[in-house]
Amino acid sequence: MYEIGVGVVGLGRIGKIHAEIFAYKVENARLVAVMDIVENLAKNVAEKFKAKWYNDYQKLLSDPEIDAVAIVTPTFLHKEMIVQAAEAGKHIFVEKPLTVTVDEAQTALQAVRKAGVKMQVGYMRRFDYAYKNAKKKIEKGEIGKPLVFVGIARDPGAPPGWAAEPSKSGGIFLDMLSHDFDMARWLMSAEVKEVYVQGGAYLYDEIKRKGDLDVVTINFRFDNGAIGLIHGSRKSVFGYDLRTEVMGTEGTLYIGTLQDHMFAHGRGDGLVYGGVQWFWKRFYDAYVEEDQSFINAVKKDEEPLVAGIDGLRAVEIAEACWKSYREKKPVEIPLG
Amino acid sequence: MYEIGVGVVGLGRIGKIHAEIFAYKVENARLVAVMDIVENLAKNVAEKFKAKWYNDYQKLLSDPEIDAVAIVTPTFLHKEMIVQAAEAGKHIFVEKPLTVTVDEAQTALQAVRKAGVKMQVGYMRRFDYAYKNAKKKIEKGEIGKPLVFVGIARDPGAPPGWAAEPSKSGGIFLDMLSHDFDMARWLMSAEVKEVYVQGGAYLYDEIKRKGDLDVVTINFRFDNGAIGLIHGSRKSVFGYDLRTEVMGTEGTLYIGTLQDHMFAHGRGDGLVYGGVQWFWKRFYDAYVEEDQSFINAVKKDEEPLVAGIDGLRAVEIAEACWKSYREKKPVEIPLG
Amino acid sequence: MYEIGVGVVGLGRIGKIHAEIFAYKVENARLVAVMDIVENLAKNVAEKFKAKWYNDYQKLLSDPEIDAVAIVTPTFLHKEMIVQAAEAGKHIFVEKPLTVTVDEAQTALQAVRKAGVKMQVGYMRRFDYAYKNAKKKIEKGEIGKPLVFVGIARDPGAPPGWAAEPSKSGGIFLDMLSHDFDMARWLMSAEVKEVYVQGGAYLYDEIKRKGDLDVVTINFRFDNGAIGLIHGSRKSVFGYDLRTEVMGTEGTLYIGTLQDHMFAHGRGDGLVYGGVQWFWKRFYDAYVEEDQSFINAVKKDEEPLVAGIDGLRAVEIAEACWKSYREKKPVEIPLG
Amino acid sequence: MYEIGVGVVGLGRIGKIHAEIFAYKVENARLVAVMDIVENLAKNVAEKFKAKWYNDYQKLLSDPEIDAVAIVTPTFLHKEMIVQAAEAGKHIFVEKPLTVTVDEAQTALQAVRKAGVKMQVGYMRRFDYAYKNAKKKIEKGEIGKPLVFVGIARDPGAPPGWAAEPSKSGGIFLDMLSHDFDMARWLMSAEVKEVYVQGGAYLYDEIKRKGDLDVVTINFRFDNGAIGLIHGSRKSVFGYDLRTEVMGTEGTLYIGTLQDHMFAHGRGDGLVYGGVQWFWKRFYDAYVEEDQSFINAVKKDEEPLVAGIDGLRAVEIAEACWKSYREKKPVEIPLG
Repeated sequence: MYEIGVGVVGLGRIGKIHAEIFAYKVENARLVAVMDIVENLAKNVAEKFKAKWYNDYQKLLSDPEIDAVAIVTPTFLHKEMIVQAAEAGKHIFVEKPLTVTVDEAQTALQAVRKAGVKMQVGYMRRFDYAYKNAKKKIEKGEIGKPLVFVGIARDPGAPPGWAAEPSKSGGIFLDMLSHDFDMARWLMSAEVKEVYVQGGAYLYDEIKRKGDLDVVTINFRFDNGAIGLIHGSRKSVFGYDLRTEVMGTEGTLYIGTLQDHMFAHGRGDGLVYGGVQWFWKRFYDAYVEEDQSFINAVKKDEEPLVAGIDGLRAVEIAEACWKSYREKKPVEIPLG
Repeated sequence: MYEIGVGVVGLGRIGKIHAEIFAYKVENARLVAVMDIVENLAKNVAEKFKAKWYNDYQKLLSDPEIDAVAIVTPTFLHKEMIVQAAEAGKHIFVEKPLTVTVDEAQTALQAVRKAGVKMQVGYMRRFDYAYKNAKKKIEKGEIGKPLVFVGIARDPGAPPGWAAEPSKSGGIFLDMLSHDFDMARWLMSAEVKEVYVQGGAYLYDEIKRKGDLDVVTINFRFDNGAIGLIHGSRKSVFGYDLRTEVMGTEGTLYIGTLQDHMFAHGRGDGLVYGGVQWFWKRFYDAYVEEDQSFINAVKKDEEPLVAGIDGLRAVEIAEACWKSYREKKPVEIPLG
Repeated sequence: MYEIGVGVVGLGRIGKIHAEIFAYKVENARLVAVMDIVENLAKNVAEKFKAKWYNDYQKLLSDPEIDAVAIVTPTFLHKEMIVQAAEAGKHIFVEKPLTVTVDEAQTALQAVRKAGVKMQVGYMRRFDYAYKNAKKKIEKGEIGKPLVFVGIARDPGAPPGWAAEPSKSGGIFLDMLSHDFDMARWLMSAEVKEVYVQGGAYLYDEIKRKGDLDVVTINFRFDNGAIGLIHGSRKSVFGYDLRTEVMGTEGTLYIGTLQDHMFAHGRGDGLVYGGVQWFWKRFYDAYVEEDQSFINAVKKDEEPLVAGIDGLRAVEIAEACWKSYREKKPVEIPLG
Repeated sequence: MYEIGVGVVGLGRIGKIHAEIFAYKVENARLVAVMDIVENLAKNVAEKFKAKWYNDYQKLLSDPEIDAVAIVTPTFLHKEMIVQAAEAGKHIFVEKPLTVTVDEAQTALQAVRKAGVKMQVGYMRRFDYAYKNAKKKIEKGEIGKPLVFVGIARDPGAPPGWAAEPSKSGGIFLDMLSHDFDMARWLMSAEVKEVYVQGGAYLYDEIKRKGDLDVVTINFRFDNGAIGLIHGSRKSVFGYDLRTEVMGTEGTLYIGTLQDHMFAHGRGDGLVYGGVQWFWKRFYDAYVEEDQSFINAVKKDEEPLVAGIDGLRAVEIAEACWKSYREKKPVEIPLG
């Protein structure tokens, strides 16, 4: 049985998750190697998952056992790594977002097209059971015609490291809210056509200093006339507050919950629940399905379910949001 | 249009609720008079609801405008007041429980039968929308055959005044849990046949000193083979914790909720909800329907929906519980 | 003890609620008369609450027993009735919204000021326990500095009768969402400075034909830099879906709940809860407090808690929303 | 770094979970071999986890690389396998329940003691975050003195295969509810001293035919005077309904939830939630911690956290429940 050989590039928190998944959880795949510029990290992860290690991307790309790469590096490195992987004839899984800018995204897509390799972008919510359930119900017509998308996303805290640099991460719209853009497009089966943004750097001095925003609201319209709201915040004191709603003519779907209902403490001041803290656990199965889906697409020579165009669209919306914020006016998205 | 003239006897917290309801909320009824041995209380309530007042039960019974009395006095006074009202030819609404003992209950029932008046016992949960919804679903077969009744009832605190005297109130089984006995019989359409009790006075010294219990569990069997559990506590630090479940062969019904879901505070230590504090508000509409139902039964000359026999059964179960607790063994209920 | 004599004008669903409340529930007030142009309606309500009746507003205003009027008529009648009541020296409670247009509102305010009477506008959520709890926590600093207001309001169905005519009701922004505007201003202690609207008539042909909208989203900014989102829909198939959130630097408050947690049916297809259907019951206590607060303000010669300026501000925001919708651009509110 | 070599015996659903966990998730452990009498199953699992395979228990016990066995076979095989493993000097993890009878349990414990090996029993709820949170809060005194334990456990359906034979599984009390017995003892830090049972075979003909029960209630008392209720059912049409409560003098802890709050569908008939279907997923992390804890105990030469005596106690309670059911009376547990 032929297995796809995978190399995981970038071994931060999510990189390690992908490495584990390709190592043990995905059928028809084999974790061949991992790579990180921090040599010790690469060694340790390689040992844990019984794989080879590299501290150099070129060397990994030269490894003939590797059929596909999973690029889990900082966003600002994606474009160049995609281009090189494509030129090396490797299929590509790239963590979201695709690239920092629309220009970079187009360069990346062109390289992928030219090389004839597959590329999937890591919007893993598409593989989450709750979002999939919503999608299925919408497609079956169980809420009639979808009219309104509402996305509320409050992260527990500010992004660390490079993700705090908007020039490297794309800032709040791309780094954080592009998940919601992807859900909006996917669940509504429509393109975001116009956005209008309010927001600011209210919470963290560092975010302000670096030119990013930490609280935003977005009012938008789809190309089919449906409408939507997205609100993002880089702070939620009790843990992730991530909710999505789709209202249709005949019903409404609600995804997400404020608290962990599994445990409550009845005290003198009321009933106390913990927040939904475990982001990675919440979506772990989605990561597994995502990676499996990528391998399936490669194996069957099919377009991945979250394709390059999906990655591009999310970057376009994020750029339009920045423009709306800066120019204080609604901004149309060309949808070229 | 003929209206039933009502006299409300006993103007504690619930007495005042019944007075208000008969004054304004019930069709075909008129609040004629209120009575309390505390004269000022009687006067004030009478003025508020534009009714006559008495501080003497006999005088109220002699009032020819009064067709029916609502007895909302301490339990240990019920038997005698029922007998006198029956002898005076008045229809009777009596707050739960019917009487303190089975003997008293039988005396009361006999007097009522002899006089040919109507008597309704104040198990108001039968008129609550949620319990009625459960009853309706069970009757429609929506949970198949009902197999298990679970009742959990935790009051915020110890009963005040006379209700703290088991010789006057019947103690925890009668004063508090007879609501659950009534729900068990009504929802399951069966009689409680055997009970086994565990419990003690764990929480309050005064309850212990007076010979009552404050935490109990009851394991019981119905005469049709179904089974049940009831747990009562005289303390719930965040407010009323009142829940009822009926499991059937094809589904389960859940009544009650721990918290007020209308307001949550997301703080550093989690999501905090207030308890369901407003006992009277929760059941206010049930009290209205209950009183209306009583008036309807009088008006139409029909047996009230919560009849004397229902009151008797609850007292029988409570007595059996006390016996089981004292003798430390399962006790059968004769169901004579 | 001096009581304020009240006349309730307009006996639709909410008019009857106010009549009942002034009749029985409010201290220092007395329901003197009710008025409706439908004579039989006026008679029946008057009989029920033991009050006088009129079918002519002028006659009611001439009644010397009446100190204050509660105007619960269609919005497009408010301005003229306020002016006449003010000229007659009557204090005024007027149901929300204050008037259809900003011009009308200013005329009304001027008349009130000139006459030196009190006027309160019926935004009853300010008196609801959950919203009050939010306000109190915000004032105590329990969520830090408030940054974001989110209001989601989905009504079960289209408005009936005159409220379906935007020229009479002000349309969705004024008739329905002005509650949310009032909450936004009150909870955030700030003025709405700019709005941007998306929306349309997606659900009902009649709404489209009459020039109103049935689904809208509003993105807005306060004058202190805080931001907000409001989404309204004239359809929610399972009942009222009314939720409000205030996110601050140190916590988030959540008001509202999707379902009635008091009853659940566990079936083969899952756990099924009913919606929160009872809008009037939900806010009944708020109506009582609102009317009491109005009487208190009159009695103590104080400015009512929801003053004319609050009514005006809500109309201003609604007009700005219409302008934004029509001109497809963000609209500033002058806050003159 | 020395690793404990583990052999997993019995490769049903849970056996495979333990194999995976020992293979990838546990530190200081190494999955050496798996064994099942179904040779193909053993081979496939071995291949997946890169381990040796056996279809003969004796051969596995002879493997010198194996330091410890995880016995995940049908309950009626446990006693003999424990004895043999002990005699072979292997440390033992045995899935719950320990054995079918108290006699067997004592034989097993004796063998373990004699051999001086470690034995842990698989009550994995002790390692679940929610139950651990409860335990921690109780130990910190956050609910005062614990007074009442309530356990409700409704499985989605009847047990398959050998577990349907009470002579092989111990029936509902041992096979299913011994989890609750273990939680009762652990959370209350007390021994169950007396039980009284009601119940029957209401749901499934096969269960009736085989002499097992499918719906039971248990009323019990601890040796420290605290009390409790446990209710078990072999049917819950919407999925696992597993809830635990501990009420103390100063607060109450609630563990478990009816539904998956992550997704709701607002339809014309209400809000519909799916049940908590994923039993294995719910407790997956608990299995991991359990296995890690076993390895730690072996490594550090310490008594495992769920020791042989805990296994024995659960079997004793289950036997007492059967006796109470058969003799229709309360049964004391000797606690020898």
